[in-house]
Amino acid sequence: MTTTSTSGTRPDDVRRHNRAALLRRLHVDGPSTRATLATALGLNRSTIKALVDGLAEDGVVEERVPAQRSGAGRPSLLVLPQPQAAVVLAIDIRVERAAMALVGIGGQILGRDSWRVRGSNEPREVFTKIMDYVGPLVAEQEVGPVAVGVSVPGVVRRADGFVHEAPNLHWKDVPLGAWLSHALKLPVHMGNDAELGALAEHLRGAARRADDVVYISAEVGVGGGVISNGRSLRGVGGHHIGEVGHMVVKPGGLPCYCGSRGCWETEVGERALCRALGIDEDSPVGAIVAELRALAAQGDQALERLDEFVEWLALGLGNVVNLLCPQLVVLGDLFTALPAPLVARIQETMRGRSLVSRALGGTDVVTSSLGSDAKLLGAAELAFETVLSDW
Amino acid sequence: MTTTSTSGTRPDDVRRHNRAALLRRLHVDGPSTRATLATALGLNRSTIKALVDGLAEDGVVEERVPAQRSGAGRPSLLVLPQPQAAVVLAIDIRVERAAMALVGIGGQILGRDSWRVRGSNEPREVFTKIMDYVGPLVAEQEVGPVAVGVSVPGVVRRADGFVHEAPNLHWKDVPLGAWLSHALKLPVHMGNDAELGALAEHLRGAARRADDVVYISAEVGVGGGVISNGRSLRGVGGHHIGEVGHMVVKPGGLPCYCGSRGCWETEVGERALCRALGIDEDSPVGAIVAELRALAAQGDQALERLDEFVEWLALGLGNVVNLLCPQLVVLGDLFTALPAPLVARIQETMRGRSLVSRALGGTDVVTSSLGSDAKLLGAAELAFETVLSDW
Repeated sequence: MTTTSTSGTRPDDVRRHNRAALLRRLHVDGPSTRATLATALGLNRSTIKALVDGLAEDGVVEERVPAQRSGAGRPSLLVLPQPQAAVVLAIDIRVERAAMALVGIGGQILGRDSWRVRGSNEPREVFTKIMDYVGPLVAEQEVGPVAVGVSVPGVVRRADGFVHEAPNLHWKDVPLGAWLSHALKLPVHMGNDAELGALAEHLRGAARRADDVVYISAEVGVGGGVISNGRSLRGVGGHHIGEVGHMVVKPGGLPCYCGSRGCWETEVGERALCRALGIDEDSPVGAIVAELRALAAQGDQALERLDEFVEWLALGLGNVVNLLCPQLVVLGDLFTALPAPLVARIQETMRGRSLVSRALGGTDVVTSSLGSDAKLLGAAELAFETVLSDW
Repeated sequence: MTTTSTSGTRPDDVRRHNRAALLRRLHVDGPSTRATLATALGLNRSTIKALVDGLAEDGVVEERVPAQRSGAGRPSLLVLPQPQAAVVLAIDIRVERAAMALVGIGGQILGRDSWRVRGSNEPREVFTKIMDYVGPLVAEQEVGPVAVGVSVPGVVRRADGFVHEAPNLHWKDVPLGAWLSHALKLPVHMGNDAELGALAEHLRGAARRADDVVYISAEVGVGGGVISNGRSLRGVGGHHIGEVGHMVVKPGGLPCYCGSRGCWETEVGERALCRALGIDEDSPVGAIVAELRALAAQGDQALERLDEFVEWLALGLGNVVNLLCPQLVVLGDLFTALPAPLVARIQETMRGRSLVSRALGGTDVVTSSLGSDAKLLGAAELAFETVLSDW
C-alpha cells in the first residue's frame, strides 16, 4: 500500500488528466454541450473551453450548431468527437466466423469485413487471414489504426494476449497477441469474448444505465462477462470472470468440449437450442434465428416446444445471479433472438429459483441491443481504453 | 464520472490520510519498525516519526525494544498498536450458536461470549440475547466499543443492516441493523457471514498472500465470499457476491430451505456430511469433527466412504472457480476439519473439472487457518474499516 501524495502533481498532469476525461466522456456519451461537459466532469467553464479549444485545434473535436434547436435564443454549440481522429482495429474471432472493423472515436464503425472460420480455425490460419484482410480494410480508410483489440472465446492472458485455452476453437497455448503485435507493429489488447461483450453492452448497449451487470453470450459456446461497480470484473492475473458455460448443471450429462460433462452450454448452447427447435444441430445461425422468429409468430403455444430449454436457461441464470449478484442480465449473441415472451418466462423462472434475486426484489433479464456486434465493439473499447487515457 | 482535483487537498487532509494508512498497516500487519513503515507507506522517515510520535501521545501506539535482537548494534524500536485504543464489538450469528467478542486494534480478541441459538433463533429473541450479553462483556473490559460489526448467514443490505433473507435462520425482512444501532447507540456495520469470513482469511488467515480468493464456509448452510484484487467483492447495492450454497448442481435433487431443489448445500452442507459419515443428520459440530478425525486416523481407505461427498464438493468448486477465477479457495468452518488427504483429492478433482483452473495452471485449495473464528474476526474488520479510516 502506498499513500497518495499531492506534491508530485503538476499542472500539466492535471491538464492531461482532464483532457483524457473529457475525451472519454465524448467517446462514450457522444456529442455534448460545453455546459453538460462542465457539469459532468466537475470542471469550470473556462477550463472546459480551454480543453475543447485545444482538442479542436488538434482536429479531435469539432463544435457545431445542433440540427434541432431547443427553445428560443442562441443555441448552445455541440462538441462532437471526430471519429477519424483516433481509429482502432477491432477483431472478433468466433467458432463460425471472424469479423474485423475499424472503429473511430465515438464507437463508429468506419469499415468492416468478415469471413468464415468454421472448418479452418487452426490458429496460424486464423492469424494469416487476419493479416490478409487487414491491409485492404485499412487502405479503404484515410487513416490507419493506432491500436488493436481482439476478442477470443476462451481464457486469455491480459498482459500479452496469450490464449491459454479456447475449447470450442480447439486452441491451446496460442500466443496470438505476440503474433499480431509483431506483425502489425501496434499495441494489441486481447480479452475474452463475453467479457468484451459485457463491456460494449455497458458502454453502448442494453446495460448503459446499470453498473452491476452479467452479460451471457451464446453461439456454439456459452460465455459470461461481468461488469461490477461500472468496471470489467477480472480474476487472478487479470483473467476474465464468468466462464459460465462450463458450470456443471447436469452431473453425468452430455460430454462437453472442455472435457467435463453436463456443462451449462451443453444444455443451452447453439446445438442444444437446435435440438430443442427440432432442426439440425449444425444449422447456421441465420437458420436458427429464422426458426425462432417463425415459432414466435405462431404464438405462445408453439413456444412450449422450448419449455425444457427455458428451464435449463433459467436454472443456470439463477446460479449466475446467486453467485454474481447483478442488477441486470443481458442475453447476447444467439440469445438476442429469443422471443420476448420467452425472455419474460426465463426472467420469471430465474427469479423464482434465485435466493439473491428474490431478496433484492428481482433481477432484470433483457436481450442485447448490440446483437452480434457486441464483442467487436467491446474489442474496440478495450483498445480505446489505453488510446484515450494516453491522449 | 468526476475528475480528481488536487486544489482541495490541504496539509491536514494529507496528514490524516497518512495517519490512517499507518494505523491500518499496524492493525493488519502487526508491530513494525519505523523503517519498515516508511518503506511500506512510501513516506520519508521524518514524516513517519511525526506520525508515530502523535499516535504515541494519543496512546494508540507504543514503541518498544524488540524481545529478539537481530544482529549487532542498537536494535530498531518496534511500533506496537495498543489494542485497547480502539475496540469494536463483533457479533457472529449462526444457525447453531451466536458469538460475540470485543476486538482491539491489531485484531486481538479481548473478551468473548457465545450462546446456543438453534431452536430459539426468532429475530427478536436473538436481538434480546445480544443485548443481555453485551453489558457484562463490556463491563469486564476497561474500554467500551466504538463500533459494531455483525455477521449474518444471509442476504444483508450493506447500508443499514437490513436482513432481506437468511434461509437457514428462517429470517425474512429483519431490520436487525436498525434495532442494534438504536439500542447500542453505536455505528453498526453488517455483512454476509461468508463475505466476512473471506475478509478475515485475507487479512489474518490462510489467504494473506492472495489477492483473488474465494472463501467457502459450511455449517448448516454453505456460503461463499469473494476477495477480488485485494478487496471484498460486492454486487448491486453493495450486497455480497458468492451465494454459492444455492447454486443448483443436481436438478430435481433434495429440496432446499431456500425453496429450490438440488442446491449445492444439500449435497455438501453439514447434513450431507453427516449422511456421508453415517451419523445423525443433526449431530453437533463437535461430533462431526470428531468423526472426521477418527476416519482420518484409520487411513486413506476409510476416507473412501466420503468419495461421493468429495465428488460433489469438487464439482461445485469447479463451478465456483470457473465463474470467479480465484487463485486460491479457502475451505472454512466445518470444512476446516476435512482431513488433508481429502482436501488434496478435492483440489485435484476440481482442477480436472475446471477449464479456468486448468488454463491458469491450477487453483489451490486450502483449509481455513482461522476456523470458526473467521466470521467473528471478519465482522470486527468490517467495523474497523470505518473506525480506522476516520481516526
